[in-house]
Amino acid sequence: MTVLILTSEEDVTADMVVVHLNGAGVPVVRLDPADLTGSVALSGEYVHGAFRGHLSAAGRLVSIGGLRSIWVRRPGPPATRAPAPSSWLTEEASQALYGMLRGSDACWMNHPDAARRARHKPWQLRLAQRSGLPVPATLITTFPQAAREFAARYPDLVVKPVSGAHPQDPPRAVPTSRVAPDTDFSAVAYGPTLLQRRIAKRADIRLTVVGDRMLAARKAVADDADPDEVDVRFAVNSLSWCPVDVPPRVADAVGAYMAGAELAYGAFDFAEDADGTWWFLECNQSGQFGFVEVDTGQPIARSVAEWLARPDPRRRAGVDGADTAVR
Amino acid sequence: MTVLILTSEEDVTADMVVVHLNGAGVPVVRLDPADLTGSVALSGEYVHGAFRGHLSAAGRLVSIGGLRSIWVRRPGPPATRAPAPSSWLTEEASQALYGMLRGSDACWMNHPDAARRARHKPWQLRLAQRSGLPVPATLITTFPQAAREFAARYPDLVVKPVSGAHPQDPPRAVPTSRVAPDTDFSAVAYGPTLLQRRIAKRADIRLTVVGDRMLAARKAVADDADPDEVDVRFAVNSLSWCPVDVPPRVADAVGAYMAGAELAYGAFDFAEDADGTWWFLECNQSGQFGFVEVDTGQPIARSVAEWLARPDPRRRAGVDGADTAVR
Repeated sequence: MTVLILTSEEDVTADMVVVHLNGAGVPVVRLDPADLTGSVALSGEYVHGAFRGHLSAAGRLVSIGGLRSIWVRRPGPPATRAPAPSSWLTEEASQALYGMLRGSDACWMNHPDAARRARHKPWQLRLAQRSGLPVPATLITTFPQAAREFAARYPDLVVKPVSGAHPQDPPRAVPTSRVAPDTDFSAVAYGPTLLQRRIAKRADIRLTVVGDRMLAARKAVADDADPDEVDVRFAVNSLSWCPVDVPPRVADAVGAYMAGAELAYGAFDFAEDADGTWWFLECNQSGQFGFVEVDTGQPIARSVAEWLARPDPRRRAGVDGADTAVR
Repeated sequence: MTVLILTSEEDVTADMVVVHLNGAGVPVVRLDPADLTGSVALSGEYVHGAFRGHLSAAGRLVSIGGLRSIWVRRPGPPATRAPAPSSWLTEEASQALYGMLRGSDACWMNHPDAARRARHKPWQLRLAQRSGLPVPATLITTFPQAAREFAARYPDLVVKPVSGAHPQDPPRAVPTSRVAPDTDFSAVAYGPTLLQRRIAKRADIRLTVVGDRMLAARKAVADDADPDEVDVRFAVNSLSWCPVDVPPRVADAVGAYMAGAELAYGAFDFAEDADGTWWFLECNQSGQFGFVEVDTGQPIARSVAEWLARPDPRRRAGVDGADTAVR
């Protein structure tokens, strides 16, 4: 049983995981869908009620039925490095590759449907509420009057994008910023705006979840920190990430979130306030983990490798793969 | 409880369904996400563990918590008719709108995840096999040698796109065509190619499924039909669609397919051979039904309206919506 890793050629995070898989003697095939129809090829046959499919990458052939797990790391858009790329070829190659893989019995980290759903921040906030995680009061609106009333109730606000990175080339992260007290909200009518009560935080928390394993790291806010630097990605902070225990109530709620989201991997960001409460900010289903592993020494890459290499519980239980639901 | 219809302004199929909903006195809000942030506005607030959201369209305000069902008909990309459209605004508006709707308890026809998955033809073929539907021998490949061997085994083949319509502007359907006996398959290496055994058909079958209701129509192939006209969408045929019973074995298999695909609506295309076997060709989760209803008089629009208006089984059973999984 082989582990399939879909990612670009230069990906040191994937390299870290491959080292662990190689060490454990687990067969791995790594490919970038962008290399379809160049160094990557595919074939699948539907005959007499059965499917037999193969992928070939760098001269290695692997059976789709023999895939244990699929790690969707940082794959390029299919066939974009083909000799004559086009949007039509990318669409055809994408449907062919993912259409076949979706019909396999492999475990996904993460399944494309779960990954796509998990990117919706409004949905994240609702799921976090339902899972029992504390969520800072948040408004997403195109009504200027709703924004004004919210700002009257919660005078200390931050604003952040609803969707994430700005789609320029290369995409750029849009920082979370504080809202000035005298802000004119009339421009809210021209685009959905996400306003959130600012948490006066004493630390940032990054909780990395791999299957049912939870690895939390904490980075204290420096005593002389500028209170306008609310976004940990952009703040200047010489302190480093340290391992921290996950409070049992948080662990239960995060477990419920992961189950509801049908995710195998998730990187949660929390803000820890003066009372020690962890406020849910977001869960990034494809969040980087290299920087946390470097700072804390936590075995995240090894946990990913072990999850990818674990025996499929369906096969272990003797369930015939052909009878399980196609997802 | 309100029915939300997401579609463009000119959509006679939606008009047909709205007539039935109006006749039954069911509240309906119809809007095109393309009109965000013009005539369509949204607002949602996450406070104290709860969510309260609203949509406004053409001056009408509807609570997201009060949505009974959501029909994703032919919505435009969000905010594309805004005063200053951009890909960034479309992304933000899309995440805001669908992110909020995904957190609601409404029933979807069809859920965006199920709809997206259902477009993958290789996945369709595998699910059809697993559901017990006869599937013509099919090969999807970038290996010329695999294509040659398949053509040797099945000399009478058709070729069709893996993905569907060509993404030109406006998109154009690519017809299914017969493969000439002396075809050179070396170009297969440049793009995934779908080859399928041609079914010598005596009729086309269109089976429309709405919830657990199945309405089948049959269009005989004319006696003087050109055998090269394999694609019913492009064939010249003066015969019309007639209602036909669904064989019980097909009904069971189609029910399994719909459940496996998590679809509330699906339009199945079959080819009926000389033995009367219905061969699965595809299931279009957004297939048109107006032309079948006009020819056959089958109550498809009414069935859609009744599905959209039915009481939510979760609410009927007294289950608290807040405890159900967010999908």
